[in-house]
Amino acid sequence: MSDGFHVYDTTLRDGSQQEGLNLSVQDKLVIARHLDALGVSFIEGGWPGANPKDTEFFRLARTELDLKHAKLAAFGATRRAGLKAADDPQVAALRDSRAPVVTLVAKAHDRHVELALRTTLAENLAMIRDTVAHLTAEGQRVFVDAEHFFDGYKANRAYALEAVLAAAEAGASVVALCDTNGGMLPDELADVVHDVVSTGARVGIHCHDDSGCAVANSLAAVRAGATHVQGCANGYGERSGNANLFTVVGNLQLKRGMDLVSDAQLADMTRIAHAVSEVTNITLGSQAPYVGYSAFAHKAGLHASAIKVDPDLYQHLDPARVGNDMRMLVSSMSGRASVELKGKELGYDLSGEKAAEVVTRVKDLESRGYTFEAADASFELLLREELAGARTSYFKVESWRVIVEQRPDGTQVSEATVKVHAKGERIVATGEGNGPVNALDTALRVALERLYPELATLELVDFKVRILEGSHGTDAVTRVLIDSSDGKAEWGTVGVGENIIAASWEALEEAVTYCLLRAGYDAS
Amino acid sequence: MSDGFHVYDTTLRDGSQQEGLNLSVQDKLVIARHLDALGVSFIEGGWPGANPKDTEFFRLARTELDLKHAKLAAFGATRRAGLKAADDPQVAALRDSRAPVVTLVAKAHDRHVELALRTTLAENLAMIRDTVAHLTAEGQRVFVDAEHFFDGYKANRAYALEAVLAAAEAGASVVALCDTNGGMLPDELADVVHDVVSTGARVGIHCHDDSGCAVANSLAAVRAGATHVQGCANGYGERSGNANLFTVVGNLQLKRGMDLVSDAQLADMTRIAHAVSEVTNITLGSQAPYVGYSAFAHKAGLHASAIKVDPDLYQHLDPARVGNDMRMLVSSMSGRASVELKGKELGYDLSGEKAAEVVTRVKDLESRGYTFEAADASFELLLREELAGARTSYFKVESWRVIVEQRPDGTQVSEATVKVHAKGERIVATGEGNGPVNALDTALRVALERLYPELATLELVDFKVRILEGSHGTDAVTRVLIDSSDGKAEWGTVGVGENIIAASWEALEEAVTYCLLRAGYDAS
Repeated sequence: MSDGFHVYDTTLRDGSQQEGLNLSVQDKLVIARHLDALGVSFIEGGWPGANPKDTEFFRLARTELDLKHAKLAAFGATRRAGLKAADDPQVAALRDSRAPVVTLVAKAHDRHVELALRTTLAENLAMIRDTVAHLTAEGQRVFVDAEHFFDGYKANRAYALEAVLAAAEAGASVVALCDTNGGMLPDELADVVHDVVSTGARVGIHCHDDSGCAVANSLAAVRAGATHVQGCANGYGERSGNANLFTVVGNLQLKRGMDLVSDAQLADMTRIAHAVSEVTNITLGSQAPYVGYSAFAHKAGLHASAIKVDPDLYQHLDPARVGNDMRMLVSSMSGRASVELKGKELGYDLSGEKAAEVVTRVKDLESRGYTFEAADASFELLLREELAGARTSYFKVESWRVIVEQRPDGTQVSEATVKVHAKGERIVATGEGNGPVNALDTALRVALERLYPELATLELVDFKVRILEGSHGTDAVTRVLIDSSDGKAEWGTVGVGENIIAASWEALEEAVTYCLLRAGYDAS
Repeated sequence: MSDGFHVYDTTLRDGSQQEGLNLSVQDKLVIARHLDALGVSFIEGGWPGANPKDTEFFRLARTELDLKHAKLAAFGATRRAGLKAADDPQVAALRDSRAPVVTLVAKAHDRHVELALRTTLAENLAMIRDTVAHLTAEGQRVFVDAEHFFDGYKANRAYALEAVLAAAEAGASVVALCDTNGGMLPDELADVVHDVVSTGARVGIHCHDDSGCAVANSLAAVRAGATHVQGCANGYGERSGNANLFTVVGNLQLKRGMDLVSDAQLADMTRIAHAVSEVTNITLGSQAPYVGYSAFAHKAGLHASAIKVDPDLYQHLDPARVGNDMRMLVSSMSGRASVELKGKELGYDLSGEKAAEVVTRVKDLESRGYTFEAADASFELLLREELAGARTSYFKVESWRVIVEQRPDGTQVSEATVKVHAKGERIVATGEGNGPVNALDTALRVALERLYPELATLELVDFKVRILEGSHGTDAVTRVLIDSSDGKAEWGTVGVGENIIAASWEALEEAVTYCLLRAGYDAS
């Protein structure tokens, strides 16, 4: 990417203000590598000097972070009131970080100068000028984040513009206008950006999503002349989050025709979004534009037949361009066409007649409480059964039993025993767990792992329970969905029954069966 | 709300296209009541005739849904090609639904007419005209959803406009322009809306979030002259979802000064958003604008002192206006007022100090996964404990045990044993059930009913299990909510734990305790 337009990521700094998001130094290094692979221009690593973790990050980055595309930016503040920039230890830490870029947060809202900084309006301008000039003279490139800019502009336009010009004239190469409280809407924001651009300063944009418009606001600013756009991976950030950098990049490149990253980098975006969410341990919303698991998933049967004719009629772009996939969801709302498409997606060729049989079977199972749209592995096992005339099976269950008790001393114990037959053997195994399903899971693995070592890769990543309607209280019908992974792929299985444990067992048994199918073992 | 502007909710129809979202008829009725409480103008209930569930919803709605604000809309399609509208069974089902409003989906994109409908462009226009005219003549108000309108406009502007005019001239009172594939950005969308508005038709807008701009697109359309805006609770919907109705309403009312719902209804929006998510069993994103748990949560310690001086410096609006709270993630300062209020509602007088203690206790329990919003009985028991210094108790549990097994012949057995002490007796009782919780419930009643005959009135009316996020697989933390009734009132209790059975037991024990409290027995 040329210097003409900046994609500036602040996941490691502003993104980590999100409730529940805590990144270690190693986490930050891993995320920085992912963002670099996407081809962003700048990665804001944190605030060196403000906490030991961020100082350590910049120290390690010099040797451990071999960035191919991005430049590292250190975030910090303008000098304190009444101090020389060169004598301010906070400014010294920015200098000593040796980051090629320093991004200084500066006040542009008169009331914030008075109430938060508790200094005069004139001194605040001097603080901006001095700090920018000092760090520029030290050889660092300086960007300025004009905090609370839009609220400040509404309160005192002249002062807000003075702050921008003070930064630009002192040598800041970008002044990013921050909608810190996130309350702006695109039209009014664009008018303000346009006004600032006309001063001649190079303008950037930094949006928050409190009005649900962070992405649209970022686009509006770019159209109004901003040439530097800030955001966070997966929209992380305080309160409602920052502008989602992936959505912004997707929109600018694919809908506005800008050339921000290479086609190959863009096609890696979905993988990168999921990889980052693995590091943050915050589940990536399945609805996330472009990169979410559901972003190109179709449920309506109405659409399925036309999708067969021309998929572009029902998607805003080819999901392959961002590394995502179209998926057909099978449900009672869908008909034969979606089952055929889903079959093809899974690699099975279904005749019209066979597809119709599968639809009948699915509709019957759904009326009993099953659902397959989130249980693709159960659907594939059903499909294989319909095609082969028999279940894919690696073991036969004779019986199972689980005991859960709370003892007089208050301790809780869960213990399961399973009796299964596999490869000609009868195996009895027992497992403990912190709950009944965990105990059954353990017992089943203990029973099978010797015969099927690949089972060691199986992990249950999610477990959902839903009590279905039409019945009362604890004797209602229960649906259990289990998401499993073998480290390479994820799949869902479903179980249904009046007994929550039996329903869980059904989903568990299919999860294990599917794992063994994927591992390539011969089924009986 | 006057007819001059429509807030049109399609959660029950388009929202339920979301992957993993499955609503029962009862779920739909509950959600409709919540949306009505918010004061939306129209609630689209589904497609009567297309599936038995939706037909049943409209049948039940006539007797069970006493809407105060909203009107019910039935969704359906224009007549089939080559058939009279009056003879089309699909159209008849819309008529027979007796919904005051019918919303007809109509094709406005020439390629969709040819490839999906497989008819001529002229016949499609006739289908629109005939169906609108027929239903209007039958006394129903008709809206038209112009599907794939924006893509159609780009492909063939003249035909797209013809479709709109065909609908309007035949008597449709609103033509909603649908960005069905969700790929539009606000600027280009506004230009198109403006063009359509200039034809004189009353225009509505229906957006999807595939570009992350559904909310901004809806606002842009309203600014361009649309007077009817569609969306879904919590942004539910296929792929990346529909426009989030709560965010749209918040923005239009609080930032555009429109008078859509009353101040009191708006102040109920956060509660309603969470209540709907309890029904859908889809976790409400903590970042959701306006209504998310984190939407007004501040982590940056930097600003704490300034927030104390003037919170408005750091939030885009007063969270109380939408029923949310500012939360300081380091030093909590919210909550006391609502606890005092809730205490008063339950008939307990809490001093400021006692209320603060309860807040601390609630916050601690919530951080461990408890929730009291839907567990008022558990909250009251907690309140009584804080005020009296001891739990309200009618029995003491020594131990419990439950065995669930699947025998070699396939039969499943659940058997529970409880050992309790009450009124000086030690009682051992056993119960069977069709699942472990049902068995425990039975055993506990068997143990206590002789001493507390009023227990016979207790019925468990609902049982909900939620696996809390942030943990993996079957060893995740489980929250169980039980709704109980004694025929006069209903109450909720909550239990939390790694062990699903132990969490259920906790909620069950509190449900029984609360039943005995209501029956007026003396607690020990």
